[in-house]
Amino acid sequence: MKLYDFALAPNPKRVRMFLAEKGLSVPTVEVQLREGAQFADAYREINPFSLAPALVLDDGAVICESVAICRWFEETHPRPPLFGEGALERAQVEMWSRRAEIHGFLPVADVVRNTSPMFEGRALPGVAGGVPQIPELATRGRAALARFLRLLDRRLADNEFLAGARFSVADITGFVTLRFGERADLDIPGDCAHVRRWRDAVAARPSAEA
Amino acid sequence: MKLYDFALAPNPKRVRMFLAEKGLSVPTVEVQLREGAQFADAYREINPFSLAPALVLDDGAVICESVAICRWFEETHPRPPLFGEGALERAQVEMWSRRAEIHGFLPVADVVRNTSPMFEGRALPGVAGGVPQIPELATRGRAALARFLRLLDRRLADNEFLAGARFSVADITGFVTLRFGERADLDIPGDCAHVRRWRDAVAARPSAEA
Repeated sequence: MKLYDFALAPNPKRVRMFLAEKGLSVPTVEVQLREGAQFADAYREINPFSLAPALVLDDGAVICESVAICRWFEETHPRPPLFGEGALERAQVEMWSRRAEIHGFLPVADVVRNTSPMFEGRALPGVAGGVPQIPELATRGRAALARFLRLLDRRLADNEFLAGARFSVADITGFVTLRFGERADLDIPGDCAHVRRWRDAVAARPSAEA
Repeated sequence: MKLYDFALAPNPKRVRMFLAEKGLSVPTVEVQLREGAQFADAYREINPFSLAPALVLDDGAVICESVAICRWFEETHPRPPLFGEGALERAQVEMWSRRAEIHGFLPVADVVRNTSPMFEGRALPGVAGGVPQIPELATRGRAALARFLRLLDRRLADNEFLAGARFSVADITGFVTLRFGERADLDIPGDCAHVRRWRDAVAARPSAEA
């Protein structure tokens, strides 16, 4: 088994945190995203979408997309459960994972990809060029993130973690979103004390540095 | 149990197709999105993100987000499996669901929300106003969708459905993406014969009209 990883990118970090929470260790290969290795034919054969991470199993089967890789490990190593147990908890983990990703992670990506000089002409991940940055999208992303964090703050007023009483993959997505946002100086709004409490609790877990 | 639905919106359609494939029927309440009913206090109490669909269970528990609702029904009514069976198939369904959503559905949403006069000032779903349209984002969305469909075409050259031999929730997301795109005159590129074959096969399923 081989995990195609990249230390500095947020999606691979989601998988590394997940593995650390499971107590698993997997051989990794670093894909040099900043040097364009994801666009080389060798990597496109693994992931035609030119994105990391990717997991290649011993029989050659390939699983791409951070959450799909996490789900494979959940199925093969169910303890501790990070996608929930039982119909309701599983649905709530899915709900908060999606909210964290669609309303948190993707807006942060919009800010970073549409402002950082590193992504000039490459404002969409997985595309080698010809995608100009859109500054207005960064503005929109900042507002969307603040709105999400205020809604999350209400949730965390009554819940220890995003999906309820138990740490889950939704917390990983949420936490990596905040770390990713630090690159664009995105911070938690001052009125979101519950988000800060939760962020600090997740940051104190050993998996946070994975 | 009550499903908060809206006939004309793409995310509720994903749930309706899923239920039709399962042979399930659920009492629905229409949320009049075009009249702003999602921003009324009564609906915000159900979904503070002001989005449809939402499922309220008999004990009052609420599940929002189309895929989370589908997952609840998968857990409670496993046959036929629409999220896959076994670790590998489940991971592949997740991978293709995410690809269809992130690289297909969301770009189509970008086109529709940033061009249609109906969404002027409301270019993000769930936000009542103050979000101007960004025409360049519609341009980017068109290119992203065409790129996704070409990658999908290569996948469908060797596979009957997105995740492999079996129809899954990934096909529902992909199919609803194409239907959604028709609103902005987005069509399948001429060189994508496999996508057309698959689209026509899904369109012929009774669930397609759900």
